[in-house]
Formats: sequence, C-alpha cells, structure tokens
Amino acid sequence: MNPLLDLSQRDEPIYNGWCTIPSSWSAEVMARAGWHSVTLDLQHGLIDYSHVVPMFQAIQLTGTVPLARAPWNEPGIVMKLLDAGALGVICPMVNTAEECARFVGACRYPPIGYRSYGPLRARAAFGADYEHSAQRSTLAFAMIETAEALRHLDAILDVPGLSGVYVGPADLSLSLGSAERSDPTNPHVLDAIARVAMACRARGLIAGIHCGSSAFAHQMIALGYRFITVSTDSALLSQAVRDVLEQLRGGRSSSRGGVY
Amino acid sequence: MNPLLDLSQRDEPIYNGWCTIPSSWSAEVMARAGWHSVTLDLQHGLIDYSHVVPMFQAIQLTGTVPLARAPWNEPGIVMKLLDAGALGVICPMVNTAEECARFVGACRYPPIGYRSYGPLRARAAFGADYEHSAQRSTLAFAMIETAEALRHLDAILDVPGLSGVYVGPADLSLSLGSAERSDPTNPHVLDAIARVAMACRARGLIAGIHCGSSAFAHQMIALGYRFITVSTDSALLSQAVRDVLEQLRGGRSSSRGGVY
Amino acid sequence: MNPLLDLSQRDEPIYNGWCTIPSSWSAEVMARAGWHSVTLDLQHGLIDYSHVVPMFQAIQLTGTVPLARAPWNEPGIVMKLLDAGALGVICPMVNTAEECARFVGACRYPPIGYRSYGPLRARAAFGADYEHSAQRSTLAFAMIETAEALRHLDAILDVPGLSGVYVGPADLSLSLGSAERSDPTNPHVLDAIARVAMACRARGLIAGIHCGSSAFAHQMIALGYRFITVSTDSALLSQAVRDVLEQLRGGRSSSRGGVY
Amino acid sequence: MNPLLDLSQRDEPIYNGWCTIPSSWSAEVMARAGWHSVTLDLQHGLIDYSHVVPMFQAIQLTGTVPLARAPWNEPGIVMKLLDAGALGVICPMVNTAEECARFVGACRYPPIGYRSYGPLRARAAFGADYEHSAQRSTLAFAMIETAEALRHLDAILDVPGLSGVYVGPADLSLSLGSAERSDPTNPHVLDAIARVAMACRARGLIAGIHCGSSAFAHQMIALGYRFITVSTDSALLSQAVRDVLEQLRGGRSSSRGGVY
Amino acid sequence: MNPLLDLSQRDEPIYNGWCTIPSSWSAEVMARAGWHSVTLDLQHGLIDYSHVVPMFQAIQLTGTVPLARAPWNEPGIVMKLLDAGALGVICPMVNTAEECARFVGACRYPPIGYRSYGPLRARAAFGADYEHSAQRSTLAFAMIETAEALRHLDAILDVPGLSGVYVGPADLSLSLGSAERSDPTNPHVLDAIARVAMACRARGLIAGIHCGSSAFAHQMIALGYRFITVSTDSALLSQAVRDVLEQLRGGRSSSRGGVY
Amino acid sequence: MNPLLDLSQRDEPIYNGWCTIPSSWSAEVMARAGWHSVTLDLQHGLIDYSHVVPMFQAIQLTGTVPLARAPWNEPGIVMKLLDAGALGVICPMVNTAEECARFVGACRYPPIGYRSYGPLRARAAFGADYEHSAQRSTLAFAMIETAEALRHLDAILDVPGLSGVYVGPADLSLSLGSAERSDPTNPHVLDAIARVAMACRARGLIAGIHCGSSAFAHQMIALGYRFITVSTDSALLSQAVRDVLEQLRGGRSSSRGGVY
Repeated sequence: MNPLLDLSQRDEPIYNGWCTIPSSWSAEVMARAGWHSVTLDLQHGLIDYSHVVPMFQAIQLTGTVPLARAPWNEPGIVMKLLDAGALGVICPMVNTAEECARFVGACRYPPIGYRSYGPLRARAAFGADYEHSAQRSTLAFAMIETAEALRHLDAILDVPGLSGVYVGPADLSLSLGSAERSDPTNPHVLDAIARVAMACRARGLIAGIHCGSSAFAHQMIALGYRFITVSTDSALLSQAVRDVLEQLRGGRSSSRGGVY
Repeated sequence: MNPLLDLSQRDEPIYNGWCTIPSSWSAEVMARAGWHSVTLDLQHGLIDYSHVVPMFQAIQLTGTVPLARAPWNEPGIVMKLLDAGALGVICPMVNTAEECARFVGACRYPPIGYRSYGPLRARAAFGADYEHSAQRSTLAFAMIETAEALRHLDAILDVPGLSGVYVGPADLSLSLGSAERSDPTNPHVLDAIARVAMACRARGLIAGIHCGSSAFAHQMIALGYRFITVSTDSALLSQAVRDVLEQLRGGRSSSRGGVY
Repeated sequence: MNPLLDLSQRDEPIYNGWCTIPSSWSAEVMARAGWHSVTLDLQHGLIDYSHVVPMFQAIQLTGTVPLARAPWNEPGIVMKLLDAGALGVICPMVNTAEECARFVGACRYPPIGYRSYGPLRARAAFGADYEHSAQRSTLAFAMIETAEALRHLDAILDVPGLSGVYVGPADLSLSLGSAERSDPTNPHVLDAIARVAMACRARGLIAGIHCGSSAFAHQMIALGYRFITVSTDSALLSQAVRDVLEQLRGGRSSSRGGVY
Repeated sequence: MNPLLDLSQRDEPIYNGWCTIPSSWSAEVMARAGWHSVTLDLQHGLIDYSHVVPMFQAIQLTGTVPLARAPWNEPGIVMKLLDAGALGVICPMVNTAEECARFVGACRYPPIGYRSYGPLRARAAFGADYEHSAQRSTLAFAMIETAEALRHLDAILDVPGLSGVYVGPADLSLSLGSAERSDPTNPHVLDAIARVAMACRARGLIAGIHCGSSAFAHQMIALGYRFITVSTDSALLSQAVRDVLEQLRGGRSSSRGGVY
Repeated sequence: MNPLLDLSQRDEPIYNGWCTIPSSWSAEVMARAGWHSVTLDLQHGLIDYSHVVPMFQAIQLTGTVPLARAPWNEPGIVMKLLDAGALGVICPMVNTAEECARFVGACRYPPIGYRSYGPLRARAAFGADYEHSAQRSTLAFAMIETAEALRHLDAILDVPGLSGVYVGPADLSLSLGSAERSDPTNPHVLDAIARVAMACRARGLIAGIHCGSSAFAHQMIALGYRFITVSTDSALLSQAVRDVLEQLRGGRSSSRGGVY
Repeated sequence: MNPLLDLSQRDEPIYNGWCTIPSSWSAEVMARAGWHSVTLDLQHGLIDYSHVVPMFQAIQLTGTVPLARAPWNEPGIVMKLLDAGALGVICPMVNTAEECARFVGACRYPPIGYRSYGPLRARAAFGADYEHSAQRSTLAFAMIETAEALRHLDAILDVPGLSGVYVGPADLSLSLGSAERSDPTNPHVLDAIARVAMACRARGLIAGIHCGSSAFAHQMIALGYRFITVSTDSALLSQAVRDVLEQLRGGRSSSRGGVY
C-alpha cells in the first residue's frame, strides 16, 4: 500500500516535496513533478484540515504518496489526517518518549495504539483491507528538533511503532544556539544531525530531514538520511520569480518583503 | 429549545442522521429526510469547523436539531461547536470520569462547568434566553468505546451534567478484540452494549449508539437505546449508487476502492 | 485518452453518474462506485466553477472519465471546463444549428473551432500531446430538449464536430406539453426520444439521455441510447435516507420538503 | 409560497435588505433584523454563485424571503439563482423590451418563458408543487437605470410576466448627467423616478428602488414605491464602526479609504 | 514593526476592532474604519484558521495591525496564527501562572519560549529580520476572566514575556456570580477590573478590555486600560440594521432571534 | 491611482506577473517578488470570481497593481472584476471593432461607456474620487490573437477608450497555422507581432504580450512592447521543482504528466 516502504527496504532515498500553499492545483503541480511523496505542512504552511482532502486527492491522482505534518502533537488532528488519506504523519517537537508514545499511539489501532476506527476516505482510497495494512504501512515520523529531544533520543527512538524521525534544522539550530536556519554548517548542529542518523540506522528506522538545497540533500544522504525534503513550494516559486525578474531587469532585484 | 428532550422524556427513540460530507446542501438533503436530529461528524467525517456554520444553518432551516461530534476531547472545539449553534455534542473516547468531567464542563456555563461565554450564533438562533436554556437543554454525550471506558462506566455516568452516552461499536469491538466493525454479533460486545444501556436507564441518561442498519437499530431500541443513528450520508449514497449500477449491469458490480 | 470512445466504438452503453453536490468527497464516492464517467452539473446542480477542479481531480483519481454540463451555451465557461480537465461537455438548450455551432466551436481548437489555447490542467492531466488528442477525443454533447430543437434536429446533428446529443426528458416533456418530468410514458415524448436516437445512429453520433431509474435506462438502451445517466447524487442520497427512516418508523414517512 | 405577494396585494411596502458581504453568517444577521426580504447582490456586491446556496439557507432559516440581483442579463445565472432557491431576481440594465423579454423568459417555465426545468434546491425548499407555484410567485424585477430604459419604459413594462421594476438611482443619475449617486434631489432624476412609479402603478406592477436612507425611503413610498431597499450591509457596518470610533476619539475621524 | 508598542509607550489608548464574520471583505471594511488594530476572534467568532490568511492580508493592506484571539490555550493554533502574520495573540481563560507560561512560551522563540521556527507569511510580511523583531514586538495577551485568575493574578502577571492582559467582562461576571454580560456595573466586578488595571500598570503591562460601548470604553480608559475593544462587527451591523428598520417602521421593531 | 500609467508615459516596460493558482498566498508570493503588476487569469488559469477579492487584497498589500484577464468578452464579469479592485482588465479574443467596443464600454462609465455604477471595493481601495480617476486610469487591454483580429487591427485599435492590446502568441500561432505555442520564431507570426506593436505605438496605445522567457521578453521590448508578462506561477513552480528533482537524481527526470 505504501511504496515508500519499498524504497526504504532497498535503502534508497525517498524524495519528498513540501506544500505550504493551500490549493489542490499547486499540490497537483508539486506531485506531478516526480517526488516519491508530497507532505502537506499544517504546522508552518498556510494549510489546515479544510484544505487537506482535495489536496490529498490531487496528490494521490499522480501516484505520489500523500503525507502531512500535523500542526502539533494532538491526537484529534493526527487521526483526522490519517482518516483523510495520509499514508504518514510527521509530528513536530517530540521531546520525550512520553510525547513520542502519545503521537505514535494516535497513528496505530489497538492493541498497538489508540487510534479510533473510522477511516472514511482512507478505506475508500486504499482498499477494504486498510485497517490491517495501515498498521504496517502508516508512517509515523517524530520530529527531533531540540536539545531536549537529543538528550532523550534513545528513549524516543525506542518507542514501539515509530517509523522514523524528521529533523528540523531551523529549530534544532535555534535550540542549540546557532544562528543558521537552513542547511547548517555549525559543527555542533552537524554532529547532532549525524548522531540522529546513526541512532536511526542502528534501529532500522528511517531518518528524515528538511533540506534547503539539493547540495545539502546529497550531504545528508551521505550521512544516512533517506527521507529527504528539499525546499518548499512557496520558496521555489518565490525564487523562480525573482530569478526571472532579475533577468528582465539585467541583474537588479526589487523584491518587496522578506525571503522565505 | 431542544425537542430531543421531549422525545427523551416520553421514552421515544430519537432518530439521528450522520453527516460526513462537507456541504451545506447534502446536510439539507439529510435534514429534509425527516431525522429528529442530524450530527456533523468532525471526528471521522471529512468536516471541520469551517464547514459547520452553513451546515447548521441548513439543518436548522428544516426544523431538525443540529448536533456535532467533536474531533477529540478538547474544550476549544467543543465550545466553538456550541457557540455555532449545536444543541448537543458527542465526544469521542471518554475513558475515565476525569475525561468525562473535562468534556461536560466545556458544555456548561459556570457554576456547573467552565464554558466560556460568547454564544454568538447560538443566541441569534435560539433566543435571548439562550444562556439559561442552554444549561438545561444542551446535550453532552460521552462516547463509550473502549474496555477502559467499560471499567470506569459507573464513574463516567455519575459525572454531573452528562446527558447520555454514545456507543461506537467499531472501536468497542476493536478494543474488546472482536473483528466486527458494525452491527456486532459477538456476545462479549453485545453484553457490553446491553450493560451500557442498563446503566444509563438506571440514571435517567440517554443511551445512544451508532447502527449500520435499521435491523440493528430495532435490536438496540429493544435493549433500551433511545438515541439511534443509522449509517452515514457517504455510506448511504455509496450503497445506493452501487445498487443502481448493479441493476444497470444485470447484477455485476464494478466498484473502485473499498466500501465505507 | 478518452475510454468513452472505445465503449462507443464497441456500441456498448456508457454508464454516467451525475453530481449536483458541490464536494470533492461526494464526487469521489460517486466515481468509486464504478460509473464509466461522472458529470458535474453546473446547470441545475449546486456546483459552479470554483468547485470544479477538486471534483475533477477526485473523479480522475478513480480512473473515471470527468465530464461537465455547462450552465448555459456560453463559450467562456465551456472552455474553462475543458481547460480544467473535462473530457467532454454537455450543453443545455441547443435549439438551432447556429447554437450548436457556437457550442461545438468552443470545444475545438482552430481550424475546426475557436477554442482558445491554454489547457493548463488538461495538459498536466492528459499529457503533452493534449492539444492534438483533445481535438479527437473531447466529447461535445448538445442537449435536445425542446420542440424547437426537434424541428431543427437534422441541422443540429449535421454540425461538424458534434459528438452526440443528450436528451433532457423533463424539459422535453414540458416543451411538448406533457406533465411528466422523469422517465416519460407519454407517446409523443417517447416518439421524439426514439426519433433522436435513430437520427444519431444514422450519423454515428452518441445518443445520450437522463434516466430516473435503471428500468427506464434499459428501455432507452433498447432504443439505441448509449450514454446513460441514472438519477443524481442528491436524489439517490435522499431516497436512500428516506428508505432507512421508513424502515425505522415501520413504514411511516415524515420528510420535510419536496422530493428531488 | 412568496409572502411578498401578499404585502404587494395589500399595497404595503416591502422592506428589503441588501447583502454584499459573501458570508452566510452576515446574511443571517441581516435576515434576523426583520426585513421582509433580503437580496444577495451578485452585480456590485462581492458575492458570486458559490456563496449563494449557504446564504439562501441562512436567509430562509429566519423566515425572510431570499432574492438575488444577477450580475448581468444572462439566462444561465438567472436560472441558477432560481434553482438555488431565490423567490425573485433583479436584473441590471434592462434597456429595451427585447432585453426585458430575455430576462423574464429566463424566470418562467414554458409556455410562458424558456426556463429550463431542474429546480433542485428550490423544490426541496418550497415543496413538490414548486413548478406551478413558481410560475405565479417568482418575482422578476427589471432595473430601470438609464435614459434609454426611460425612453422604452412602456414597452419594457408591457412585457408579459414582469413583476415589477427596480430603480438604480446611481446609474440613472449618471445616465441623466447628474453628479448625485444616492438619494437624488436633481429634479430631472426625481421626475423620472416618479414617472416610473406611476407607470408601474397603472399596470399593477411593483415599483422598487434602492435608497440610501430611511428618509429617502419614506419619500419614495409617498411616490408609490413599494419594494424598498435601504443601504447595504457593508455601508451600514462601515458607518456604524466609524460612529463608534468618532465617539472614542471625541469626534475626530481617521478612516482609511473611500466611503462606500 | 508593531505600532501598537509606540502607542503603548506614549500611554495612549489602542482602539481595537473585533471581527467575528469570516470574510476578508468585512475585515477590510473594519480595518478601513480607522482602528489601530483589528482582532480576528477564533474563540467566540465564527472564524477559524482557514479564514485567517485572507483576513490578515486585508487588515494589513490598510495599515492596521492584525491580531487574533486563539480558540483556546493550545500551542499549535497560537503558533499558526503568528506564522500567518498576527502581531499579537489574545489567549482565553488563563487561570494560573502555568497556563500563562504555556501560552507565552508558544509566542516566543527559544531561549525565551518554545515557539517553533517557520514564520512563512510573517517573514514575507514583516521582513527578513522578523525572527528577532518578533521576540520584542509580538504581543501576548492573557485573558483574565475568572475568579481563579484573579486569585492567581500576581503570579500570572509575573510570567516573563507576557505583554498584557485582556479582560472578558462577560465571563468575569459569570464567574463572580453577576448576571451582567457587558459593560458591568456590579461593584465586585468593577473592583476586580480596577485591580487588574492597577496590577498591570505596576508592571508596565498593557491592560486590555472588551467594551460594549464607547461610554464604557471611556470609563475603562480612566481606570488605566489602554487596549480597548468596542463591540464587534456582528453586533454593530445588527444594531445598525435594526435602527434602519425602526426608522422605516416608525419605531416598531420586528427582529427575528436574539440580539448578540 | 495607477502607477502603470507613469511607466507607460516614460516609455518604460511594465513587468507583469501571471497568476493561475487560486490562492491569496501564492498571489502574495508573486506580488512580493517585485512585478509592477500581477494579473489574475480567469480565462485559462484555475481562478474564478470567488477567488478574486482575497487575491486582489494580497496583491495590493504589496504595492503591486492588481489586474485580471476576463474569462470571455462578457460585461458582467468585466464589471465585477473592476468593482472588486482591478485597475485593468485583459479581454480575450477581441476580433472586431464591435467586440472591442463592447469590451471597452464595460470598462468605462457613461457617457464614454456603459459600466454600471457600484464600485464597492474599488472605492474603498482607491478613494472617494474613484469614479472620476477610474475613467482615466482603468486599463482596458484587448487581446489580439487571431487572423481575424489582425485583419481588423486598425478598426479595433481605433475604438475610443482602449488602453492597449495584449498579444497571445499561442492562439495567434494556432490561428496562423504555426505549431509553436510559446516564444514564436515563425516569421509570419513574428511579422504580425511586430505589426501590432507598430500600430499601437502610432496611436499611443500600450502594446502587451505574453512571453515564455526573459529572452523573448527582451526581444519583444526591442519591438516596442511595453506590457510584458513572463511565464506563469504554475509554470515557474513546476520548472523549479523539476530542476531540484533533476539535481537530486543526478540529471534524470521523472515527471508525471505534461509540462505546462
């Protein structure tokens, strides 16, 4: 049911697109470009649940795996995302094993977890056997993005049912006192990132990370990361437009507002 | 203000429709069919708060009582549903008396509960006396759907201000280790269902349950259940369309995807 | 690109579902039931362009052919529906050859018609060759539903590029002075319906018709109709709910409002 | 079915509210205030068809008559508004008898007009007899707002099936070369306004007009106008807020942008 | 970045508009009237996150400061509101220092708080330095509206990073056993309100309060309140419409439903 | 009121962005990049009127000029776009002077045109003098994109009140029998494009054109074009994402669906 598992078993990188624009059309544009999966960002993106169903329909239409980042570690929205057809959820700010168990439990039916039964769209989309296949193939990624999470890393990763982690370099840098927000070069941050990859590999978990560029992505793949996001729809659109305007103006930029 | 209370006092069954499609038109279609109440399912349905106001307007237009199931036991959304005009809320996964008190408290103004005052649409819809009438007539249904909830049943039902319970047979079966998801026949599950009805009746609470068919509904009414949902808008539409297609094809089915 | 053409060439009936509820979820429910095509009704349905893209994405996701009925014979909306991914458009109230040419021209690029180029979503959905394949495989159905249209039938059907017709029995009955609105039995109306089928068959055009029941659909297939709609999402949902309520109430109905 | 007809037969004024904000909640606020009817303005208001169904549901919920102004004299949208549940349509810029016949024909089923049959929501909302009752009780108001319309006034008013007219003082003033846009005092404009009222009264038609204030409304009622709009939701909200801010600031205004 | 801070430093009152209608147009109408800030009420208003981005864009367009009231003290939505461009958040029902710290922490990046980094729209709207400027200029208002909050007032106000408080007179009256809901005259309630103002002033915090009228607002400014809301968009619209209808009817009211 | 006129008077090129994604956030991303104007494409883009108001608010927020392309030459939508705050409209497929007069008339108030008065949002956004300033500063661009339009070029350009033209190279190529759809190199098409520029310059009209690349844009500026669109939001996003994926995959592409 979830082709990302096959890639993972072959130790191949999963390329993941990142949607922040609340539109089923931009989601289709993203998905048609050829990512293995596309994630709807309900945390920092401008998307909420009311946009999710049409965007998942658009992503699934192209044969791409639909995922979502929850706005926070709250079981109601995690379960709604899964019922709507997410094949995996990324949960922000998982800092302890207890928080991880709360998140993972929301992604698994009893007796493993406490997910409530009623996979309305998921069962339509993934078949009558969804209840059982979902237990194996729903991906639960805990975000490791604070010093506290690093301190509890082993305990977090040992929570049964966790599929992998997703590193947020911006928050991790902030938490470790570094001023970088993307593609960090700070050795302390890079050490932590490397340590997370190794701890995942030791347990057969998928290590994922948000990258600002394909160069940093290649560096992360070399460290053992296999779930790889590069940039976002908003950032790629913004940069592409600014490049065109610079060409039109012979090199002069004239943007209005901060870059994102 | 709430005609469901009259039905309840006469010990007559309340027939409740169940909306999962996020549309004010399908809600009006449901409500015009003649249910006593129609519930918007914000947990497993594809509905969230941004769809609620127009759907409640459509339901109330037909003289049907608007209800909602909250996505989770979280006071913010419970209060928003009531302010928007719900005459009752069903809360999923109430497993302990503490959880029940948290839920019921969100449905009642002080000094009974801790609902915050500001019934913007509710006061427009139900009159200037809403603040007082709502204390009596707002229905708070706790879902009993786990083995844990059964263990704490008496304590849950004794929480002051609770109006009744709503049994989710799918989650209850899952929790009790049964493979059935609708209209259970498993004796352990049926025993639990009967026990809930009796415990409600002993306290004058309304026992509610989700049924997959009118046959099961009659069986549940015989057990003492009085708040009776049968199926959902999505399931009824899906089945009706499949029936037509089978008639067209002379009996051969050719659906695409799981049944829900 | 358009599997309906294969069915048509094999002289097999096309079963077509009819959407009037503005929701991408109910559209997916309709499409998963197994229709060959699903039509969004922008004329009498409660749908307009802003709902079309997500609904087409949902329909196409299931491998079903997306079609639409335009609100009126106006080139702007006909072209927008095609650009959004319709593989065919049904146009209401085509009463003369001129009106037919205006409609068909909006569906075909020059030199055949005057469709403006810019198939944004259609090209994404149907491939880089869309411009050429669309000329052959886009279906243009003119509605024959008035006495005037019957008078001009031959001229209408001879308009180059027309794919077929769609008979609206309600308007046709109204125009011919009959009080029936669905599945007509009036001999004058049935004669007209038979005549349209024969005139289509003589030209290799697809004869389509809106049916209220599978019984009438079989009767129409016997007459030569091959594009067969039965009922609508709203009507099927409404009837299914009323059936359930009748079962619950032991045969007594209590609906609120007219049937549709 | 349409209580406005009773008021009209008793020669009593109809007070009509005017919605320009695209929201079912502001529509309910407007309707609950006690207007006889509330009109959704799809021409100069910020409303289009996708907002109409929830707004009509909200208006009808309060027992107020739902009406709409079409964006232009185009049969597709006029019919869609009626199918969605409008009990009357106001059509802008009707300058000739031909234009009036085109508009009125879109509001009436054959043999009177050419409205297409399929009153999906209207039949649900107004009953199984809608098809017949609508012929009598659907209000068709032609806007008289240009010098050209005044020249053709008698021919326009003689179009069979017309229910009345609606005068737009802003456009009429503009067309007659007057600089006033609301509540005109220019004698030429007032003469024209008076002439329209008399011509309507002579034929038993309802004379309607858009007023900027209740003072002008009383003046128009004295002239024979009986369908009376005062201001709009946007203008009333804007003025009320500016009044509050002036009170807060002790009389100093500090608005940002033009008044509307 | 936040002009409200300048007003505050000059000890001048901030006039704040209050939006409950989910529409970017009514938000623009509110903002153009000249408030210093406009708050989107996601608690008792009919607004949720999916309406926020367009409403913030509309408010910011007029040079007015965009704020929001969160539905509840839940970090996910507080952070989403800030990322979408709120320059401040009002949090309901803050009853203890712990609850206040949970709220304030969600509004501040580490090391002060635990806000997660990803200010997508905020950075576009407020510039590349947003991360640093936001730490200083994002306003965090805790609502003081219960007897419990009054008991813990000093501890709540001493939470580092808090910008001020917002008093909800309706809930405060309810909690203190008074029947008034707006512009209280009950001496116990007024004493509590005065005490809050003094406690804020002693710490350099901004005291805010919701007023029903400009008269009460002037009274509150005299007590030391500086963040002053008067009424809401819905209430002002409703009252303005009722005034017009009373003028039309020569003084007779005929509203339908409660006043709000 | 319209800074594009200043650029035009200084004979400087206007750089215009093109929106096809129906989202106020992607519109803000486009506008912040630094275009002089941003056009919402209601013809081939996936945008309709219900998306326009929030998108115009977002564009105007950044100080960029909001424009729109109408879906077709229909006065209702042209006037709605202007009332919503467009400072100019591009009209597709203007093939004769009569069609041009119909379009231009919809953009101008009497006595120049027949635009109906009621600039609800436009007056709020552009000031109390909007009625007069709009007559001068509203831009009306007729699309020249067929052989027929070229035959009637002089008559079209001589229509009083026209501001300029907009060349659609795809449709023009199609009409002239060329297979190119973007950035044409066919000499017949390029000759026609050059002829349009000269005819505009002779009359002081603004010549506009849709370009696929900045290279073609520079070529067109050299020909005298001054209203210059390059690409679209969808195309720029799609290409940027494919570039990233190619970098990730070391040069191999794996897109799903046609390029647009």
